[in-house]
Amino acid sequence: MTLSTSPLVSVPGFRAVGVMCGLKQSGQPDLALVLADHSCAAAAVFTTNAFKAAPVLYDQTLLQRTGGRLQAVVINAGNANAVTGEQGLRDAEQTARWTEQICGLPEDSVFVMSTGIIGHRLPMDKLAKGIRIASKDILTEAGQLGRDAAQAIMTTDLVSKESLSQTTIAGRPVKIGGMAKGSGMIHPNLATMLSVLVTDAVIEPVALDTALRQAVARTFNRITVDGDMSTNDTVVVLASGEAAHPVITDPHSPEFEIFTTALTQVCANLAKAIARDGEGATKLVEITIRGAATEAEAETAAKTIATSPLMKTALFGNDPNWGRALAAIGRSGARVEPSRVSLTLGDFRLVEQGEPLDFDAVIAHDWLAGTDEVKLVADLGVGQAEATVWSCDLSYKYVEINAEYHT
Amino acid sequence: MTLSTSPLVSVPGFRAVGVMCGLKQSGQPDLALVLADHSCAAAAVFTTNAFKAAPVLYDQTLLQRTGGRLQAVVINAGNANAVTGEQGLRDAEQTARWTEQICGLPEDSVFVMSTGIIGHRLPMDKLAKGIRIASKDILTEAGQLGRDAAQAIMTTDLVSKESLSQTTIAGRPVKIGGMAKGSGMIHPNLATMLSVLVTDAVIEPVALDTALRQAVARTFNRITVDGDMSTNDTVVVLASGEAAHPVITDPHSPEFEIFTTALTQVCANLAKAIARDGEGATKLVEITIRGAATEAEAETAAKTIATSPLMKTALFGNDPNWGRALAAIGRSGARVEPSRVSLTLGDFRLVEQGEPLDFDAVIAHDWLAGTDEVKLVADLGVGQAEATVWSCDLSYKYVEINAEYHT
Repeated sequence: MTLSTSPLVSVPGFRAVGVMCGLKQSGQPDLALVLADHSCAAAAVFTTNAFKAAPVLYDQTLLQRTGGRLQAVVINAGNANAVTGEQGLRDAEQTARWTEQICGLPEDSVFVMSTGIIGHRLPMDKLAKGIRIASKDILTEAGQLGRDAAQAIMTTDLVSKESLSQTTIAGRPVKIGGMAKGSGMIHPNLATMLSVLVTDAVIEPVALDTALRQAVARTFNRITVDGDMSTNDTVVVLASGEAAHPVITDPHSPEFEIFTTALTQVCANLAKAIARDGEGATKLVEITIRGAATEAEAETAAKTIATSPLMKTALFGNDPNWGRALAAIGRSGARVEPSRVSLTLGDFRLVEQGEPLDFDAVIAHDWLAGTDEVKLVADLGVGQAEATVWSCDLSYKYVEINAEYHT
Repeated sequence: MTLSTSPLVSVPGFRAVGVMCGLKQSGQPDLALVLADHSCAAAAVFTTNAFKAAPVLYDQTLLQRTGGRLQAVVINAGNANAVTGEQGLRDAEQTARWTEQICGLPEDSVFVMSTGIIGHRLPMDKLAKGIRIASKDILTEAGQLGRDAAQAIMTTDLVSKESLSQTTIAGRPVKIGGMAKGSGMIHPNLATMLSVLVTDAVIEPVALDTALRQAVARTFNRITVDGDMSTNDTVVVLASGEAAHPVITDPHSPEFEIFTTALTQVCANLAKAIARDGEGATKLVEITIRGAATEAEAETAAKTIATSPLMKTALFGNDPNWGRALAAIGRSGARVEPSRVSLTLGDFRLVEQGEPLDFDAVIAHDWLAGTDEVKLVADLGVGQAEATVWSCDLSYKYVEINAEYHT
């Protein structure tokens, strides 16, 4: 239960709530509703997986129809509504229609997200019940507090994930709040990363879309738990405009820059929280590649280390195994000058100018065993570009979670 | 101990032996020597990792200098001679020189392979001892039997890997024998896949190189245990010419085709043996993608499934989790028509025309639990191309092997 106020509802113009409608067998909250007082500028980014779930397909056309305007987001856990054919599309649309009707909203104002098992129809009776409960609760103190919203979208997540950022635009205070879920895969089929972001900034949909893409590129797109990509991944942002500063339209303006920086901060906090909560993870691993020819190559090299099972198991075993990091860089395709490479793990300088350095492996092991956050920095020795990626280690628990819980 | 005759020495013109020189702490054989009666046509393919080990760098220039001629291969386990700088290169060359001198071979006739820990100098005193013992043993019955050669190149491998193929070229019997090692990573740093192939075929070095590249592309390059690529991966082939058929020079001739087919068969047997012996593996997994737009896209889709930790843990858990396979295909970048996709696991048809089929999950689970070889076939519904990849599941044991054995 959320006892304090959710970052989502700290932002003027928004209410949120999570309720139980029987989609999770555990009896935990499983349907969340985020509701704005008025129509908002909105933007979203979606999975690039070729198998897009029904709500993703619905939302993509929705945002085209509305020109980037939304007033609410309804999210269910327990069922992803993916690989459900034409019926799945009708169910996603029905979920939006019911929410619009019950909340008294105009048609095409509700965005739909789903996460859970694939290949099964949404239990629409439960959805209807959940929407009815949520539409009532959101008008009470629960809605003002954002109670249980971040819990309701969790699947295998161990902790809920919320973040708030504040900034000033044209002398006016501006807030950005967000919640996210994501941990790896859920019983029995799917990983999904979902996030809902809300702000009182005044910004046109096109500029908001640009800001969101920039923020996501360096945050949500730079985390990896197991390298797999869901059919449902979605990040959506709603801007209420209640901060009442002059509208942001130009992506080259200082105000756009300020907003995007704050949005990126919220996304980074949520993204890191997802990596830290990766299935079975014992450590958050931050990998920074410097000295790359391009930022894209830096990102590629960092992601290759971040997804290497060998590197991830070594970190789980508290083994300062720099050889696995170099082997991953070497096969990543990023340009690298072996004789100029350096590598640092935490405070331990392990490789310099391509040569292994002497270090106390016992002390390094003990340090790794005592920390839940590891920073690895490698310099490729070919340029000036850099990128940072967040990941986690690979433990027995990851295998257990994904092997033992069956269909 | 190898009691029967090794496939390597079943090929006229070759001897082989494995000996102990103290490189492996276990006291097992750790140095192998493969010796031809005369100079052979030779070709090799190497890792594309940017961090190439010293023996790889030595061998690449060696084959250029000799124009594709070799008479022996010396292989040590226990130390990869990788990330060892200029000294490592000198040590690789010294290993070749000693072998040439002790065996009475001309300079630039010996190919060098190493596998083991990285970042440490080769213990050259032990190498010298091993080469001396091997050069004597290879002249005895042990060398005629190829005794211990395949054992001496093992690292974390649980079983040695050898294969023999026979064919007929221009009415003459031709044999191709090979050995390989590879399982994942070894303590503490490196995976390596090594293979030595020998044949009595009569073939020019350039044609042999073409044949080897064709064979490797569809065999060794289509296996994956954990997606990581070693700094030392090497496959070398020596052709003694003792089969005395007309020399093969034209890669478009029927004789070239026959030879390459037989070579591919040996490589496929060895490659599958490596996948089956993947670290911690309980199953060999064969993934075939059909109906792809191109063979490259089929291979990409198959490899994305093959390296997906989610698919690999599901198979370890005997879970017929087709959703994870589709999700992997969907993110692979291969063109796919979701509404025409089909998927079969063993004898279970799970997806047809993009829709999940009803199947008995309990029976499927029990079948998976009872087999050590699983075939997954998916049709992407866009073209005619296909490719097959071999992999294994991801178990607790994999995590243990790679997390628990420290520097």
